[in-house]
Amino acid sequence: MAIKPLGDRLLVVPNTEGETKKGSLYIPDTAKERPQEGKVIAAGAGRRGDNGELVPMEVKEGDTVLYGKYSGTEIKIDNDQDALILRESDVLAIIG
Amino acid sequence: MAIKPLGDRLLVVPNTEGETKKGSLYIPDTAKERPQEGKVIAAGAGRRGDNGELVPMEVKEGDTVLYGKYSGTEIKIDNDQDALILRESDVLAIIG
Amino acid sequence: MAIKPLGDRLLVVPNTEGETKKGSLYIPDTAKERPQEGKVIAAGAGRRGDNGELVPMEVKEGDTVLYGKYSGTEIKIDNDQDALILRESDVLAIIG
Amino acid sequence: MAIKPLGDRLLVVPNTEGETKKGSLYIPDTAKERPQEGKVIAAGAGRRGDNGELVPMEVKEGDTVLYGKYSGTEIKIDNDQDALILRESDVLAIIG
Amino acid sequence: MAIKPLGDRLLVVPNTEGETKKGSLYIPDTAKERPQEGKVIAAGAGRRGDNGELVPMEVKEGDTVLYGKYSGTEIKIDNDQDALILRESDVLAIIG
Amino acid sequence: MAIKPLGDRLLVVPNTEGETKKGSLYIPDTAKERPQEGKVIAAGAGRRGDNGELVPMEVKEGDTVLYGKYSGTEIKIDNDQDALILRESDVLAIIG
Amino acid sequence: MAIKPLGDRLLVVPNTEGETKKGSLYIPDTAKERPQEGKVIAAGAGRRGDNGELVPMEVKEGDTVLYGKYSGTEIKIDNDQDALILRESDVLAIIG
Repeated sequence: MAIKPLGDRLLVVPNTEGETKKGSLYIPDTAKERPQEGKVIAAGAGRRGDNGELVPMEVKEGDTVLYGKYSGTEIKIDNDQDALILRESDVLAIIG
Repeated sequence: MAIKPLGDRLLVVPNTEGETKKGSLYIPDTAKERPQEGKVIAAGAGRRGDNGELVPMEVKEGDTVLYGKYSGTEIKIDNDQDALILRESDVLAIIG
Repeated sequence: MAIKPLGDRLLVVPNTEGETKKGSLYIPDTAKERPQEGKVIAAGAGRRGDNGELVPMEVKEGDTVLYGKYSGTEIKIDNDQDALILRESDVLAIIG
Repeated sequence: MAIKPLGDRLLVVPNTEGETKKGSLYIPDTAKERPQEGKVIAAGAGRRGDNGELVPMEVKEGDTVLYGKYSGTEIKIDNDQDALILRESDVLAIIG
Repeated sequence: MAIKPLGDRLLVVPNTEGETKKGSLYIPDTAKERPQEGKVIAAGAGRRGDNGELVPMEVKEGDTVLYGKYSGTEIKIDNDQDALILRESDVLAIIG
Repeated sequence: MAIKPLGDRLLVVPNTEGETKKGSLYIPDTAKERPQEGKVIAAGAGRRGDNGELVPMEVKEGDTVLYGKYSGTEIKIDNDQDALILRESDVLAIIG
Repeated sequence: MAIKPLGDRLLVVPNTEGETKKGSLYIPDTAKERPQEGKVIAAGAGRRGDNGELVPMEVKEGDTVLYGKYSGTEIKIDNDQDALILRESDVLAIIG
């Protein structure tokens, strides 16, 4: 099943490995509100400007991105994997 | 009865088969708030930009789309079938 | 008395026949919040864009339109008939 | 005393004759919230678009207009007559 | 002390004579919410449009203007006189 | 320490002499909400318009300006002096 | 780990030395709400205007900036250091 995000949306799989790397350290609740990392597995073509022009995307398929914890809409993709549909404007930074 | 959605609106028939495919598994209530799939049976010509230009549609008749559960306006079409009128901006992704 | 709607407004007479066609079936209250049909008896010239350009109308006099139940402003026209003044943006679809 | 409305504003004298024409019929309170008619006795030159262009007026001096009951600002003009300053966007239709 | 209003602002001295002309008639409180007259003693050069263009002023120094009672910011000018700084968009009409 | 305000911001030192000039007169609390005077000690290059164009500043370094009492953000500059960073749009007038 | 802020965002490390320079003086709570200084360690390429044009950044990598205390989103970077992702519009001034 291919998912093609619309406009400036991105299909992102949250990076859960990052959390386990920290070993057995205690992570307080407030830390859980920190931005999360994820991998972009599909990107839309871009939003349309006020006059209809296509505004190019800065984020591309394969990028690792940092985004606000409560951004986007949760969906299930193949193999019941959790994924998110985010707008590019919800992405804080590309990590590389 | 033909229905021609106005502007950037779409006439969508929700895909109820998707729900039954999951067999007899228990689906918790929160899952019901997940986006839904539907089939586009008619699409408007597009919205007008601030200066009146027609902004072309990215979604087309025949596409299967993913949209937020509470998006759009419910209507009844032929044979008392449930359908929705959505704006293209309520569509998260095209599935294919 | 001629009424010429201003800008992107439409003068619409609600289609009350549609309701009676359903015979004597019980219609629950929620169904009453569904969009309504009406006939456009006059249409404005269109709204002005941000820079003053006239944005053409997609709906025309004589069209049958679907609109949200609580849209527009109620007025009385000739022979004490109920009518509505709607903006084109309140019209969901043209039915034909 | 001449009053020149600014921008897209109109000076309107409410048409009180319309109410008395209905004879001695009982008019319920809700009906009083219906739009009102009035005569335009002065019109501004038009609003300025985002980039400063003058957007021409659709309503002109002498027009009879329909407007929302609670629109505009009440003023007193010559001979202590009640009048309103409305924006053109508050005018629903021209009656003629 | 010269005061040069910025952008589309106006320096206005409220016209208090208008109130006394009415003699000793009783003026109810609601009437006090009516628009007020004032004399423009300085006008800004105009606001800048979205793209930086100067949008010319319609109101000029010396005009008598009608403005909403609670518009603008009160200041004291020479001789402890009460004055207001208004935006042109708060001016309803020019009186002449 | 040089401070270069960003965009359409201004670095302003409030004019406290103005208050003491009034001698020992009693100033009621409401008067304290009146706009204040200050001296512009640094000005940004201007804001960027919607399409990226630089919109020139009307206020310049050295101007005495009138601004709303609660505008801007308080900072400390050299010698622990109180200063404000204001946007040009918070400036009501230039005094000269 | 390289972090590339998106659009008009900046990666900033708060300047904690500034606070200790003040020695052992008592700093009241309200003072803590004052803007803070930080060093820009990475800057985005700029935001896209309404029509898609890239609007250039005024702040650059290496600048020391003043920003509102509650601006931006906290993240952890290398060596568990606290950093912020800010939008350029949250920056009040460049200090140099």
